[in-house]
Amino acid sequence: MASIPTATVSRLVTYLRILSQLDEAEVTRTSSEHLAGEAHVSAFQVRKDLAYFGKFGTRGAGYSVQTLRQELMRILGLTRPWNVAIVGMGRLGEALAVYPNLARYDFQLTSAFDVDPAKVGREVNGVRIRHADEIPAAVSDLKIDIALLTVPSEAAQDAANALAAAGVTGILNFAPTVIDAPPGAYVEPVDFLAGLKRLSFYIQRSKAKEATT
Amino acid sequence: MASIPTATVSRLVTYLRILSQLDEAEVTRTSSEHLAGEAHVSAFQVRKDLAYFGKFGTRGAGYSVQTLRQELMRILGLTRPWNVAIVGMGRLGEALAVYPNLARYDFQLTSAFDVDPAKVGREVNGVRIRHADEIPAAVSDLKIDIALLTVPSEAAQDAANALAAAGVTGILNFAPTVIDAPPGAYVEPVDFLAGLKRLSFYIQRSKAKEATT
Repeated sequence: MASIPTATVSRLVTYLRILSQLDEAEVTRTSSEHLAGEAHVSAFQVRKDLAYFGKFGTRGAGYSVQTLRQELMRILGLTRPWNVAIVGMGRLGEALAVYPNLARYDFQLTSAFDVDPAKVGREVNGVRIRHADEIPAAVSDLKIDIALLTVPSEAAQDAANALAAAGVTGILNFAPTVIDAPPGAYVEPVDFLAGLKRLSFYIQRSKAKEATT
Repeated sequence: MASIPTATVSRLVTYLRILSQLDEAEVTRTSSEHLAGEAHVSAFQVRKDLAYFGKFGTRGAGYSVQTLRQELMRILGLTRPWNVAIVGMGRLGEALAVYPNLARYDFQLTSAFDVDPAKVGREVNGVRIRHADEIPAAVSDLKIDIALLTVPSEAAQDAANALAAAGVTGILNFAPTVIDAPPGAYVEPVDFLAGLKRLSFYIQRSKAKEATT
């Protein structure tokens, strides 16, 4: 298999979001130009990104929205279920446990972990909170693929290492710190601040414009 | 002012993150090639993105990490404080109220809103929760620039409209739904699922590789 640039993977996720919106709006056909406009890249980039995975669409006739959406779902591994655990049941962990869109893509919450004895044994959204010491056994028994990591920053790297050692292959890191990917695992950071910084840019710019007009 | 592509703004945020990490590691100089490698774009793209805002660095000698970091902070509007409100004090709103990195960039939590009488009047991280009816007066009195929108999906558009009408110019949308930017306001979505979908791609791919070797 060819090596796929990480930026291509990010753009595939964006194309899928655009296609899902088109599908919800009952639009049946689209083009690389339309996808490019919505994703803020060139049409050439869209075609190049898709070409890593085969031939899609028909020259001059564009793409079927439903077919391309389904193909992207397959490419992204979203046509099969993934077993998800939440590690760190503070406020953010609890919020994620009831996040309505997880199950929409077959991300199935199968377990939750914390180290606080006051939390262990409680249930959140039908899932019993286990002690973090049970991670090795639970990852194996429940075949956990992906962990949402919501522990404090200072505990994040150790928790990621323990999860990877137990066999978890994907870690979505919500802790506000950079962690190294442990051997055998992929780490994707979730950064609330990136969106805030983009907002800051646009607001400052519009204020500067107001001041000069 | 020239129109700046939204993809450039996103990349500036990425370059700033990379520069901050270099600075923390006490690296003093860098290059467009290094920034490009870390950001998964071409060195030409890095230079083109920066060229919108002036001339940085010295041909052949690269950039001073601290100087370029400071310039990007200024360009992104991060050298001044922004007044932030949280709208929707469920689990996610509460989690954001204590998110440690907000204040690191001078995003100052000045207020919080909900419609639930059981929550109104309570304090979170030193901030009193007000009723959403108080949004117009509070936005004006407290000069709120940015709202973190953590209401349920079905309430998100109306809340965004009310915030923009009251004078909020930036909305970070955590509700798992697409909302239209109201007149006079910018909206940035926070999508947990984008990271999960990228993980799904990488895990599926590594499983496929294992199966064929």
